[in-house]
Amino acid sequence: MIPLFRRTARTLGGLVVAAIALAGTAQAAPKPDVAHFTLDNGLEVVVVPDRRAPVVTHMIWYKVGAADETPGKSGLAHFLEHLMFKGTAKNPAPRFSQTVAFVGGQENAFTTQDYTGYYQRVPRENLKMLMEFESDRMTGLVLNEQAVVPELKVVLEEYNQRVANNPRARLGEQIDAALYLNHPYGKPVIGWRHEIEKLTRDDAIAFYKRFYTPNNAVLVVAGDVTADEVRTLAEQTYGKVAKVAEIGPRHRPQEPPPAAVRHVSLADPRVQQPSLHREYLVPSSTTAKPGESEALEVLAFILGRSNTGRLHNTLVVERGLAVSAGGWYRGTALDATQFGVFASPKPGVTLPQLEDAVDAVIADVVSKGVTPDEVERAKNRLIADAIYAQDNQATMARWYGMALTTGSTVEKVLSWPDRIRAVTTDAVNAAAKTWLDKQRSVTGYLVAAPHREDKRT
Amino acid sequence: MIPLFRRTARTLGGLVVAAIALAGTAQAAPKPDVAHFTLDNGLEVVVVPDRRAPVVTHMIWYKVGAADETPGKSGLAHFLEHLMFKGTAKNPAPRFSQTVAFVGGQENAFTTQDYTGYYQRVPRENLKMLMEFESDRMTGLVLNEQAVVPELKVVLEEYNQRVANNPRARLGEQIDAALYLNHPYGKPVIGWRHEIEKLTRDDAIAFYKRFYTPNNAVLVVAGDVTADEVRTLAEQTYGKVAKVAEIGPRHRPQEPPPAAVRHVSLADPRVQQPSLHREYLVPSSTTAKPGESEALEVLAFILGRSNTGRLHNTLVVERGLAVSAGGWYRGTALDATQFGVFASPKPGVTLPQLEDAVDAVIADVVSKGVTPDEVERAKNRLIADAIYAQDNQATMARWYGMALTTGSTVEKVLSWPDRIRAVTTDAVNAAAKTWLDKQRSVTGYLVAAPHREDKRT
Repeated sequence: MIPLFRRTARTLGGLVVAAIALAGTAQAAPKPDVAHFTLDNGLEVVVVPDRRAPVVTHMIWYKVGAADETPGKSGLAHFLEHLMFKGTAKNPAPRFSQTVAFVGGQENAFTTQDYTGYYQRVPRENLKMLMEFESDRMTGLVLNEQAVVPELKVVLEEYNQRVANNPRARLGEQIDAALYLNHPYGKPVIGWRHEIEKLTRDDAIAFYKRFYTPNNAVLVVAGDVTADEVRTLAEQTYGKVAKVAEIGPRHRPQEPPPAAVRHVSLADPRVQQPSLHREYLVPSSTTAKPGESEALEVLAFILGRSNTGRLHNTLVVERGLAVSAGGWYRGTALDATQFGVFASPKPGVTLPQLEDAVDAVIADVVSKGVTPDEVERAKNRLIADAIYAQDNQATMARWYGMALTTGSTVEKVLSWPDRIRAVTTDAVNAAAKTWLDKQRSVTGYLVAAPHREDKRT
Repeated sequence: MIPLFRRTARTLGGLVVAAIALAGTAQAAPKPDVAHFTLDNGLEVVVVPDRRAPVVTHMIWYKVGAADETPGKSGLAHFLEHLMFKGTAKNPAPRFSQTVAFVGGQENAFTTQDYTGYYQRVPRENLKMLMEFESDRMTGLVLNEQAVVPELKVVLEEYNQRVANNPRARLGEQIDAALYLNHPYGKPVIGWRHEIEKLTRDDAIAFYKRFYTPNNAVLVVAGDVTADEVRTLAEQTYGKVAKVAEIGPRHRPQEPPPAAVRHVSLADPRVQQPSLHREYLVPSSTTAKPGESEALEVLAFILGRSNTGRLHNTLVVERGLAVSAGGWYRGTALDATQFGVFASPKPGVTLPQLEDAVDAVIADVVSKGVTPDEVERAKNRLIADAIYAQDNQATMARWYGMALTTGSTVEKVLSWPDRIRAVTTDAVNAAAKTWLDKQRSVTGYLVAAPHREDKRT
């Protein structure tokens, strides 16, 4: 009855970029009065007071994502996200969702490689009720075959819409798969279709029991509440949930040093506008040396910012080769992540020609560096963006949830503007030289083609 | 003291091709009088009488290879192969190897994606002694840190020699990694260096206890013995080894349907002669529909046979673009396998030009098909090759070991000439049309380049 909007960040192609760019630009002065504490059962709690309106954003984040799945069970983290709406013994479905809707609230859920989260926004007086519902389904989910089987069809339909019928998303999957030779980030969050099809109730229950436990979760509440209020409510609700599993360190298989320049080309009859998408394997804010991830943020801005970045200026404005061009950096990840560039050619320009031009822009940055003026402007704008972003309560909540589920800290979120401010031109140039090495990259071409059927393996 | 020659088939680049081509061409008339039986503890035994000389070839094959490793532990199957020479309580090292040498025997061991094997060739009167030694180390291996730590250095040195200092092998790793997006065949048999470095004694012991058990092994004895003699000896030796583990079905994560044309390019200053290597994802003799794998054998012969295949004739002889060109099919594999083509350009010819020419040869086969005469010659020659190959006792033994550890049967080995004989021109043309689809392939370029250091991930 109630539409649920589940976002699967790494399957959404272009949309992801915007979301990540926003999140990556994090908070700014004045620093919010953020509280962070841990309940006896291991649940971490973050409270972000925001008194502008009598509403609260409630998010529970689990430190488990697609990259934590057992090989052969791709899509399981996302499938379980769907199944979390199937009700508990105490609150059979659709009571939870109906109640959120009844009070005029919104809800959402999302799965990425590193985390799975559940989100609601409600009037402040409904917070305790939400926490009762959400803590109940932390370990109380009841899954019967009648619930699981139709939901698998829903997930497969989502796969069809988001991937099978979306050439850009399919190319993204191919690029990721070619970028990650060993790390599970190479597998799509939504899963490979042939593996999704075989997911079972037993798979979902095993995954749930292994990862859904208070000591593997982070509660983030932003809004018109105090830390003390949230602590009291959290102890009354989540605090009563017993640990059901011990959680070890999240050691995924890591990448070997990149050794080959890679290209993938996906042809699809639905492609109207060809495009080029490249990803470089680079450190995330969690894996980087101090200052390196921040330098990559600034570099991505200088190279890739829409309408003002070097790629846009050179390829669209000066050389007239592209209708669009840009870049991005996905800093928030537990393991080695991606720096992306993309461009779409004007009619008459081939993708190899466009790639040569992209290569020239990057070679120029690598050999000659960026200017102190560019760095200054980028830093100011990134910090300003972060200030504006605080206007959105859910965005603030998301920064903390993302940080704490990807190996970062509240302190790193709070220090983000200072860390960006500290980036030097030399650091940006060193980042470009070290990481924008084509050997570390996969370049994807999306091209129009006559219809062809998939063939069996 | 005793040099051991361990082959790691999938890391050996060009050498593999020869070995596989030989093995793939299997046996022929007159059919050897092969016996096949299973001991009470689950050990399968194959006896291939060969009375020409008073020697025997003794091989024990375990149904475990690199593709059965836990993610993050790549190289473990091969590392354990090395450690199997470290001795048991009953036979401390180097007694086994010394004894084999003392009687004038040879020994060897090998690891691939699907199996791990140990081989000796000795005078027939030493067979029982061998079986005592080999059955003793099936479950009796003693691994202490003093044995494990130096052997890891040996393996890393082998990695340096075979991969790090071998650009062709490194390209092969990159091609496999790009071909297999999900299946563990994408990981190198020898392992990723950063994972090999972290392998421990505990890892090796856990792997050994999980997979080295009589019910997961195949004994093949070829030579101057009867099936009854071998059965008696096997019962006296291997028959006394208790099962130590139950073995489930070997279900590895499978590939999604290939969706993108892929290229990888590896530049290395040691490359003297550039080359192009392409692999298509195709069915193995185990995964194929009836007749399909045999048609791929014939197709590989017609396209790829050295000095006579279409690739050689067109690229080397007629068009003068290449100094060499050929192709191969690795039919023996538990899961989806590879069909390969390769070529090296003449000076002045670029790899993209050469690739266009390779594409043209393949497009011609796909669109116009091969001729009945080509098929007939290929079949005759494949079958004749198999007859000649029977001259080598170890080769015969290897056919059965490979078959029984990759989901095939003794019957399929014996029927190989008949199955090849039954291949029709239509079947070859259908195989070309279905499987030589560039979307199913990865093309690798090996090019010379100035020296560059690997960078950290």
